[in-house]
Amino acid sequence: MKKTYFTPGPAQLYPTFEKHLQAAVEEQLGSISHRSRRFRSMYQETAENLRALLNIPAGNQIVFTSSATEIWERSIQNLVGESSFHLVNGSFSQKFYDFSVELGKNAIKQDAEPGKGFEVAEVQIPIESELVCLTHNETSFGVMFPASSIHALQALNPEMLFIVDMVSSAPYPELDFTKIDSAFFSVQKGFGLPPGLGVWIVNEKCLAKAEKLKAAGHRIGTYHSLPLLWKNALSFETPSTPNVVSIYLLGKIAGDMLQKGIQIIRRETAERAAEMYGFLEKSEKFKPLVQNKAHRSPTVLVTQTSGSQKVIDQLAEQYMVVGSGYGNFKESQLRIANFPATTEAEWKRLLKMLATV
Amino acid sequence: MKKTYFTPGPAQLYPTFEKHLQAAVEEQLGSISHRSRRFRSMYQETAENLRALLNIPAGNQIVFTSSATEIWERSIQNLVGESSFHLVNGSFSQKFYDFSVELGKNAIKQDAEPGKGFEVAEVQIPIESELVCLTHNETSFGVMFPASSIHALQALNPEMLFIVDMVSSAPYPELDFTKIDSAFFSVQKGFGLPPGLGVWIVNEKCLAKAEKLKAAGHRIGTYHSLPLLWKNALSFETPSTPNVVSIYLLGKIAGDMLQKGIQIIRRETAERAAEMYGFLEKSEKFKPLVQNKAHRSPTVLVTQTSGSQKVIDQLAEQYMVVGSGYGNFKESQLRIANFPATTEAEWKRLLKMLATV
Repeated sequence: MKKTYFTPGPAQLYPTFEKHLQAAVEEQLGSISHRSRRFRSMYQETAENLRALLNIPAGNQIVFTSSATEIWERSIQNLVGESSFHLVNGSFSQKFYDFSVELGKNAIKQDAEPGKGFEVAEVQIPIESELVCLTHNETSFGVMFPASSIHALQALNPEMLFIVDMVSSAPYPELDFTKIDSAFFSVQKGFGLPPGLGVWIVNEKCLAKAEKLKAAGHRIGTYHSLPLLWKNALSFETPSTPNVVSIYLLGKIAGDMLQKGIQIIRRETAERAAEMYGFLEKSEKFKPLVQNKAHRSPTVLVTQTSGSQKVIDQLAEQYMVVGSGYGNFKESQLRIANFPATTEAEWKRLLKMLATV
Repeated sequence: MKKTYFTPGPAQLYPTFEKHLQAAVEEQLGSISHRSRRFRSMYQETAENLRALLNIPAGNQIVFTSSATEIWERSIQNLVGESSFHLVNGSFSQKFYDFSVELGKNAIKQDAEPGKGFEVAEVQIPIESELVCLTHNETSFGVMFPASSIHALQALNPEMLFIVDMVSSAPYPELDFTKIDSAFFSVQKGFGLPPGLGVWIVNEKCLAKAEKLKAAGHRIGTYHSLPLLWKNALSFETPSTPNVVSIYLLGKIAGDMLQKGIQIIRRETAERAAEMYGFLEKSEKFKPLVQNKAHRSPTVLVTQTSGSQKVIDQLAEQYMVVGSGYGNFKESQLRIANFPATTEAEWKRLLKMLATV
């Protein structure tokens, strides 16, 4: 019997994944040249579907890397001369900050405790910040920084570049790409694909910044510098041979999501999350980690529990896989992903099982 | 009808590819955590099979990146403080050199004309070179720098680090990993997989060099710095979520190659190449680009021809795909890959068709 993965990534594969993979095999897409017309039409389809799904303006480019981790590195290299600012409330936002430090930048951060989020009024961004790095969904503790807060923060600092890590929430957040300058995600979370591809959305201000840094003698990378990624994207190409099959699959699944309707997907995500948080609040065995309801992630739900391994084992007997807590909280927390790939019936089944463990 | 790809990469998929992909889907490997026991056992199997296949000493590490292009960048960052040396005889060896320049190093090169190789006695390596960058098989013009020449050059310069680009020849060359320090390839050439994974083989001298550079304040990267890749590899892990399915498939295909026998694969490759070069020499329509027989690549065969597009079109009618010439030689040359994924029957069929075009 196949398992259902409620893990925060790698995660459950999208229901149409196998069908599209089979089509890719039939069409021998693993053998085609990344300089061929077929590849360019595939890149174009994937970009157009993502553009429609996430409401990305025509002037923005959608480029591919190998992972979101790579985009942490590339974005700092290409968008920061001296100073970056980071809101840090978990391991993943912390890593984005760490990358900036490792790359020799003056990285400044504002911290929040595990399970806590940020209020716009409390955020203090140093005036010298060139790039503001925000994490829409902190995967380690299931804390969300809502899209409306991101937009409000940007409005207060219109001269800075804003980049949003939407790794474990895309395509859920309704980001306004006329306000933010860049966002990124990887495909093994909300898009229900195997890992091996990162998606980086950038506007012309990002390109101009990278070119300015390069002209000033900064090292912005080689084959995956933003100017080179951008230039190639203009003709739907990539600087080097990419994960061709994954680009194809992403386009197909984005197409399926468009067909279903992104607002339906968002509503289902919110409804299922509300149902689960409601259960966790009433339960005697579980308790939502995030107290502030406005900061609770709809896509990665974290609950406190006494002895997570026992729950994980009981669910495993029923072929359901949930994530343990992150890092030091491995034993005392559970992480439950609520991604579009899981069906209504699977979600109900999980809720039912959690009520009996 | 399915096509047979004789292209220099992406290329024909290995005959067992579909079977292994199906097994990966059945086992839901696209959903498993890269911190799980299952992933570690998979990494271990892949590394052990590659170690046996390529005769890699136990002290060397085998680490994964997203592509060989990435390894050009990471190897310069991690193994070069000031100076690198490059033998350049085509676009790919040139790019390795370009990366070193872009990363601010003092990169020095020795050039050869298209279709020409290097004699060990002619090579002059500046004494300050820290890393000697050699391309075993220059994919653009089908020129080989034989393993014996690589070993001889290293013996003359034992204090320098030697790295070998074996992208479009692995697993063919019998490199002596007690002599060279590093080598790398990507999976969409001789291993017959879709693109999206690079394999980097490194010894302890490479690790020591990277650590020394880091201690001296050089920027050696973030998540894919060599020390971090190495540390993770010790427990068969990766610093970030990798292309899990591709690592699995590579291990299985390396296992299939072991079962067939690497010496049989090498002999078949050499025999088929000899047969094709023999035909090209006698043909009135074709002429091998590389004159020096010792420098002719057995894995990427380049021939001159008048009007390559016509030949490509005629072969396409028979569901056979060969590569055009590289760059400016697109119209006047053909590139024919002779990778282990194509069968004896397919090779014979190509020879027969070429004789009639």
